[in-house]
Amino acid sequence: MNLDNLLEERRTVIDSALNYYLPGEEEYPRNIHRAMRYSVFAGGKRIRPLLTLLTAELFTPDWKRALPAACALELIHTYSLIHDDLPAMDDDDYRRGRLTSHKVFGEGTAILAGDALLTLAFELLTDKNHKKSEFGSSYWRHVDSQAKLDVIFEIARAAGIKGMVGGQAVDLESEGKRIDVETLEYIDTHKTGALVQASVRIGALLAEAGARDVQKLGLYGRLLGRAFQIVDDLLDVEGNEEKMGKARGMDVKKEKANYISLCGLVEAKVRRDQLYSQALKELEHYGEKAAPLRESTRFILYRDF
Amino acid sequence: MNLDNLLEERRTVIDSALNYYLPGEEEYPRNIHRAMRYSVFAGGKRIRPLLTLLTAELFTPDWKRALPAACALELIHTYSLIHDDLPAMDDDDYRRGRLTSHKVFGEGTAILAGDALLTLAFELLTDKNHKKSEFGSSYWRHVDSQAKLDVIFEIARAAGIKGMVGGQAVDLESEGKRIDVETLEYIDTHKTGALVQASVRIGALLAEAGARDVQKLGLYGRLLGRAFQIVDDLLDVEGNEEKMGKARGMDVKKEKANYISLCGLVEAKVRRDQLYSQALKELEHYGEKAAPLRESTRFILYRDF
Repeated sequence: MNLDNLLEERRTVIDSALNYYLPGEEEYPRNIHRAMRYSVFAGGKRIRPLLTLLTAELFTPDWKRALPAACALELIHTYSLIHDDLPAMDDDDYRRGRLTSHKVFGEGTAILAGDALLTLAFELLTDKNHKKSEFGSSYWRHVDSQAKLDVIFEIARAAGIKGMVGGQAVDLESEGKRIDVETLEYIDTHKTGALVQASVRIGALLAEAGARDVQKLGLYGRLLGRAFQIVDDLLDVEGNEEKMGKARGMDVKKEKANYISLCGLVEAKVRRDQLYSQALKELEHYGEKAAPLRESTRFILYRDF
Repeated sequence: MNLDNLLEERRTVIDSALNYYLPGEEEYPRNIHRAMRYSVFAGGKRIRPLLTLLTAELFTPDWKRALPAACALELIHTYSLIHDDLPAMDDDDYRRGRLTSHKVFGEGTAILAGDALLTLAFELLTDKNHKKSEFGSSYWRHVDSQAKLDVIFEIARAAGIKGMVGGQAVDLESEGKRIDVETLEYIDTHKTGALVQASVRIGALLAEAGARDVQKLGLYGRLLGRAFQIVDDLLDVEGNEEKMGKARGMDVKKEKANYISLCGLVEAKVRRDQLYSQALKELEHYGEKAAPLRESTRFILYRDF
């Protein structure tokens, strides 16, 4: 199977699993269920769950055991986008070419849909929800209880006040202010980096990789996460507006400091390239097996949308 | 020790544990930490964690093992209040006589503080956060991994789309509309009842009560949870405004249907009294040991604030 096909196949499995885990649109109360699904199936690239599955696959052919955790990460990522887009936060009307959640469902329902996705992520990581399907007990029940708790900790830590929410809080406070590189580094590593790094670590943990591998891949994840936000800043200047489904130049318009406004476009690309090669170096040890992860790394850091 | 003293002592332990689990106000980023603490220490009655501890105490003198879960329930309750008070939801400026979170910290920070509290609740239920203190490893580490996962499931289920968030979603949709008793029942059992019932069940689970006891106390919790919301509706008509720190008559003002507007004041009190005696009946089996739980039930259902 060529790499593109493999990545596409993994994405299809992720989407099927998300579809299975989410409540049906026709179930009562419909409005909030529709809002949850609207944002989860809005054309996301599934970067975080892909990282989890591909990392697990370095160590085990049974990568599907990481599916519930991979999906939990995507649910948490989606909740964070819904809340970030709210008028009280980034106030965005469009994302990926579609109206944002609060524009379609109203602010109240958008807030609740985010809350529901965050809570569902943790419910998924217990084992009571996995009775009937191929996405359920057949994989997750083979993971031992302590490993599940470790994954819940990693995700809660990366998503919470010491991770994503903490980064977003500083980001919110910094809007319209001059910030230094240190503050930007704090925002980026917390708001985006923490969950990207956790996605990789969790894949390794669930595949029962040894402590050295978890550490090594954690470093890979940290470098990738750092570069990830620089790429986001680059896309705001050079991205393909049609493929992104949103206008470039939003950071400038909102007077939001980013890596480019602080260090310049050239320096941003140099830094991205540096982080890319450092990240690849951590994968060298895994040889040919890491080809899908390497290809994904390249895609993540050199895409134009 | 008389009952009042016992309940006061339990509340003091709950507050100390919450203080230990929450990030410090002086830690960076300060604003969001201050917002989290502002709402958690806003004079709450600690009803849910008390129910957890008192239920555990029916079965074990080692009730402190239930402290992390009891605190997680209070964090989730607090997050739900912060989000409910937002302009896009109930739009309340005051709660317990103090300005609501978004009035003090702004809407963006209030949304994030809620998100942070919800996420921290789940982090607490893993065991990586419990290293240093009497509130930490000394109790929670004695709980086995499967029991922890069961508790995480109970809480996620009660807080999420099949519980609190689902109830709030229907409540939001129903504002300004005529609703029937069935819809009101759905809102109440989900928005308030689910977490109250979970508080009781979790106490029993963590004390390693047998399946029959968990079921029996779950029924007690369900009856209490049902009555709980009726009392909330009664307080909106007859509560002590000074002690509540908010004005009566808000449901009428917001054209929000409640048990009284649908069934009348007399019927509401009759129903509350019925549920009270049914709930007490489920406690009979536990004799004198259940005195604190009985006294709390009376307090919860016959308070004026």
